[in-house]
Amino acid sequence: MADKNAPLIPEQGWHCLHLFYRIDFGQWQLLTGDEQRTAKIALSEIVQEIRATEKTQLLTLSVVTPKADIAFMLITPDLHAANSFEKRLNLSLGAGVLEPVYSYLSLTEESEYTTTAEQYAETLAREQNLKPGTPEFDTAMKTFAERMALYPTLPDWSVICFYNMSKRRGDQRNWYALSFDERRKLMGGHAKVGREFSGKVKQLITGSTGLDDAEWGVTLFARDTFQIKKIVYEMRFDPVSAEYADFGEFFVGIQLPLDELFRRLQL
Amino acid sequence: MADKNAPLIPEQGWHCLHLFYRIDFGQWQLLTGDEQRTAKIALSEIVQEIRATEKTQLLTLSVVTPKADIAFMLITPDLHAANSFEKRLNLSLGAGVLEPVYSYLSLTEESEYTTTAEQYAETLAREQNLKPGTPEFDTAMKTFAERMALYPTLPDWSVICFYNMSKRRGDQRNWYALSFDERRKLMGGHAKVGREFSGKVKQLITGSTGLDDAEWGVTLFARDTFQIKKIVYEMRFDPVSAEYADFGEFFVGIQLPLDELFRRLQL
Amino acid sequence: MADKNAPLIPEQGWHCLHLFYRIDFGQWQLLTGDEQRTAKIALSEIVQEIRATEKTQLLTLSVVTPKADIAFMLITPDLHAANSFEKRLNLSLGAGVLEPVYSYLSLTEESEYTTTAEQYAETLAREQNLKPGTPEFDTAMKTFAERMALYPTLPDWSVICFYNMSKRRGDQRNWYALSFDERRKLMGGHAKVGREFSGKVKQLITGSTGLDDAEWGVTLFARDTFQIKKIVYEMRFDPVSAEYADFGEFFVGIQLPLDELFRRLQL
Amino acid sequence: MADKNAPLIPEQGWHCLHLFYRIDFGQWQLLTGDEQRTAKIALSEIVQEIRATEKTQLLTLSVVTPKADIAFMLITPDLHAANSFEKRLNLSLGAGVLEPVYSYLSLTEESEYTTTAEQYAETLAREQNLKPGTPEFDTAMKTFAERMALYPTLPDWSVICFYNMSKRRGDQRNWYALSFDERRKLMGGHAKVGREFSGKVKQLITGSTGLDDAEWGVTLFARDTFQIKKIVYEMRFDPVSAEYADFGEFFVGIQLPLDELFRRLQL
Amino acid sequence: MADKNAPLIPEQGWHCLHLFYRIDFGQWQLLTGDEQRTAKIALSEIVQEIRATEKTQLLTLSVVTPKADIAFMLITPDLHAANSFEKRLNLSLGAGVLEPVYSYLSLTEESEYTTTAEQYAETLAREQNLKPGTPEFDTAMKTFAERMALYPTLPDWSVICFYNMSKRRGDQRNWYALSFDERRKLMGGHAKVGREFSGKVKQLITGSTGLDDAEWGVTLFARDTFQIKKIVYEMRFDPVSAEYADFGEFFVGIQLPLDELFRRLQL
Repeated sequence: MADKNAPLIPEQGWHCLHLFYRIDFGQWQLLTGDEQRTAKIALSEIVQEIRATEKTQLLTLSVVTPKADIAFMLITPDLHAANSFEKRLNLSLGAGVLEPVYSYLSLTEESEYTTTAEQYAETLAREQNLKPGTPEFDTAMKTFAERMALYPTLPDWSVICFYNMSKRRGDQRNWYALSFDERRKLMGGHAKVGREFSGKVKQLITGSTGLDDAEWGVTLFARDTFQIKKIVYEMRFDPVSAEYADFGEFFVGIQLPLDELFRRLQL
Repeated sequence: MADKNAPLIPEQGWHCLHLFYRIDFGQWQLLTGDEQRTAKIALSEIVQEIRATEKTQLLTLSVVTPKADIAFMLITPDLHAANSFEKRLNLSLGAGVLEPVYSYLSLTEESEYTTTAEQYAETLAREQNLKPGTPEFDTAMKTFAERMALYPTLPDWSVICFYNMSKRRGDQRNWYALSFDERRKLMGGHAKVGREFSGKVKQLITGSTGLDDAEWGVTLFARDTFQIKKIVYEMRFDPVSAEYADFGEFFVGIQLPLDELFRRLQL
Repeated sequence: MADKNAPLIPEQGWHCLHLFYRIDFGQWQLLTGDEQRTAKIALSEIVQEIRATEKTQLLTLSVVTPKADIAFMLITPDLHAANSFEKRLNLSLGAGVLEPVYSYLSLTEESEYTTTAEQYAETLAREQNLKPGTPEFDTAMKTFAERMALYPTLPDWSVICFYNMSKRRGDQRNWYALSFDERRKLMGGHAKVGREFSGKVKQLITGSTGLDDAEWGVTLFARDTFQIKKIVYEMRFDPVSAEYADFGEFFVGIQLPLDELFRRLQL
Repeated sequence: MADKNAPLIPEQGWHCLHLFYRIDFGQWQLLTGDEQRTAKIALSEIVQEIRATEKTQLLTLSVVTPKADIAFMLITPDLHAANSFEKRLNLSLGAGVLEPVYSYLSLTEESEYTTTAEQYAETLAREQNLKPGTPEFDTAMKTFAERMALYPTLPDWSVICFYNMSKRRGDQRNWYALSFDERRKLMGGHAKVGREFSGKVKQLITGSTGLDDAEWGVTLFARDTFQIKKIVYEMRFDPVSAEYADFGEFFVGIQLPLDELFRRLQL
Repeated sequence: MADKNAPLIPEQGWHCLHLFYRIDFGQWQLLTGDEQRTAKIALSEIVQEIRATEKTQLLTLSVVTPKADIAFMLITPDLHAANSFEKRLNLSLGAGVLEPVYSYLSLTEESEYTTTAEQYAETLAREQNLKPGTPEFDTAMKTFAERMALYPTLPDWSVICFYNMSKRRGDQRNWYALSFDERRKLMGGHAKVGREFSGKVKQLITGSTGLDDAEWGVTLFARDTFQIKKIVYEMRFDPVSAEYADFGEFFVGIQLPLDELFRRLQL
């Protein structure tokens, strides 16, 4: 077997784990008050340790509706670390307290069509007075695109929506039977809707073909559920979604610091 | 992170939560008679607190068939409040007593086609002798439409039906590939069926694209299951439903005051 | 809220509940022999009370295959009564003993096409020497049709089959896009198959649009599983089923008196 | 109610029950060694009693993969007996030890196309020097066909595969919209594949329209998983399967005598 | 019954079992520290015994995401051995500790199109200076093809992806209605993508028609999740996948030696 201690770093992108749990309060109440305090401290310490890990980000969420109670969104380069952190989070509040109800594994990736990032980058470059076509402009664009998608910084906006998405391979509408140019053009219209929500909704699209049951994970960040509803509704009229997209379950969570999260969940 | 105490009020509409639970009587019977009484008082107090919250409404239901036993329908502006109330309701009767079996998150919204509200408003305006085209008429119409859909008062009718609905995006029947005018015209026929049930069935359509697994939540209020069956059956012949609608699970509940609900459920 | 004690009687038809349960023998065996005897008496008393209720019928079934163990079929006018009886049956053998695995809510209804009832009624009228077109004939027909479908007496035949059914709304075969005459004609062929099984299979079709997940519940009564298999197989070749019907899960039960049912289920 | 003690014998065929269980070893280990021995003897005695019943056959299987652990295949004429045996098998190892994971109810039946049986019968008749067209030939054929399908003797071959199957009722490929002759012709090609596996795979097709969720149960007997894989793969190219068949879950089991089965399952 | 002790060796290929489990830590923590140590030694010994069995391979995996925790991939010729090992692995850590969440039964097989193996073999033969058309060349090719697919040696690469796959039998795209030449040609394009990942991704395709719910199991081995994502994404554009393939759930695991696996899973 290959060196079991060597990190498993993807050639491109970081691992992204979305983890949704219900709390089994029957199990939780078997713990004494002291054990509960210790458990919450243990979870806090794991969270701190994860956040202190290089190139690693962790969001903690209170999930809306009893579909789930608590959720984590983890981004980290090494698959060993992702796997180890996830298994430790599972058990952090005691055996059987966090009951997994949904999870998703994906990798951050640059869009192969890059229209959104490109255009944002263009904007940025213009603001910095860089001339299109110059090496400085190209570097700024590449840096920006990567920062946006491949090595993103997760925003601290309160409302988060996650769902997965696959492109259809139907008899009449088969995304994978289209040419690159057709797909690129369709994605351009899609990106246009995205830009209308600039400053209101940030989206992170991560790739998961071969890694989980759908082809992409979509994480939306907003300050308001209305903007989430509006962007997803408007995109549904875009041919990319209207004709080619299938969606999984939708989850909505609220970013909360751990102490507030414990109170919200009555832990 | 953004101010964690700031309320999360949508730009438009109120949050709407439908919460369906089975009662785990095995767990319930582990409680002593005193603990059970305390638990019922605790639930009553949460219900009162929620109902005392500004712009907030809560219905309590006994669910027909063992799909579920008890259900809540909550409407409230702030997402923090919605999330907090929901988590407290979950635990109100003790750990593990209320077992979530189904839930739905949506936002109240005005129909973009507004045919129903428009026509009701027209009627209303006429009864008040307002002239179409005058500012007074327009104001009355806008107020009415908002009151109907965006900021509704839930009726106290006994029989309640909830289901979710999405519009099809099939190869031949793709709602999202129709023009606005085509959709508006189709919705007009749909609204006509609705008006035939005036005084017998009230419906509240709430939007959930991006918020939950389907695109809309539909809540019907009636005094009689026969009217529920009849309106849903008649609408099925309307092209909007016949050709473009997919439906989720159907739940039927009976509005009951808490004391009656406890008796009904043998708590 | 409306008077909470007023019965909820549908304008037309009676409520019909099909209730299927597995027995959790782990829970059952936690009871002492005395508690078990008391529990069985309690269930017997509820069954008697239900059967003594006006216009109310209750069948008790042993279910074939471990999909379920025990089932009830309840017909009663008042929704409050239906809901109350159902919740009491759930708990009748003790907390957690009856574990719901499937249920269905519907309303008895007259077929809008009425071909079967019409033709039976015609036969009946002829046997009574009534002339088609006379008021006596019309009354006999109406009475008969209602007695058959809207206010039926459930037969005591041993073998019972239940499943739900919806009509397709596909791109090419959309039942709800057909004219009334087309649907009536198709249903006529369907009824013809039904008549061939006269004396061998009785069927009760109850409506559930808006009430449960499919559009109709179908209950077949026979003295023999072979007739059940044969009629459902033959109907599958009828265009109404072949091209327009989707079916849910199938359940087969045996009508047994309670004492025999307890022995069968080893309670 | 009809005489509750009268057996429920179908007009044609025997009842066939496929019963798959997981063993809950947590429950099993709550029993003392003595109780476990008693439980195994109890199961052995029920198995003997069933096998001693007239016209009744019971196979005991160890299931491959943790989908299930133990399975029974029961064939018996009387529905009361089938139901009673099944409920007793469920509980035979103690409450909650056998956890049902899948089951299937069907009736043995003669194929309405009878191509396979016919041709086998022809062979047999020839070997006995009977002339086609003579009453003796016809009798031999009928006897053989019945023995094959309607009143079969289950082979003792080690490897058993079970799955259910329905014929498609799609817009373009609708089995039930074909004429009898078209269906008969298609089934003839299907039977031809079956004959190529003569001596390697025996198949028993039982009917379940109206009795369980699909239209047929298929039980394959072989001495080798490779033959199972090969016949099902080759049949998939036959138009009957390629264009008209939908399949349920597949289960593979190994026929073992009870003592060996207990050892295999670590009971 | 056939000799119950005779091994059940398929005519061609080895049995392949993919076994995915969640760990029930509530059950695990009921064991004392000593019992836990004994349990881990018991599992280690079973693993050693399996690995010491002739022609038998066993991989031990930590699963990424809480879909599962621990997984085994077992290849062994005898079905009795496969069944016995699997049942023993299930129970190895104590009753109820390993909770099966997914499993898959298949047989190793040579591709009937053999394009990949053929071309690899050709390469190999050339490197050994064998002339196409000579008996030596043919033998090398056959040996190689068998070694690759029918009697493979599982690589020790860290990242493993498993999913199942079936070919579509749709109205317009029906794999099983294509001629052998059409299928062979399509598979050739598919194999070409595979070869581009030579040295980065190894794939093992095992057959499961008649053995499990889909038609093939696909196991990918890589050193990096990025390569898994890339190959599956690129293959999706290949007509074989784009138009003819349906996929099941995807599982990603990391090969770890047992001691490291115990630590990773906090056992």
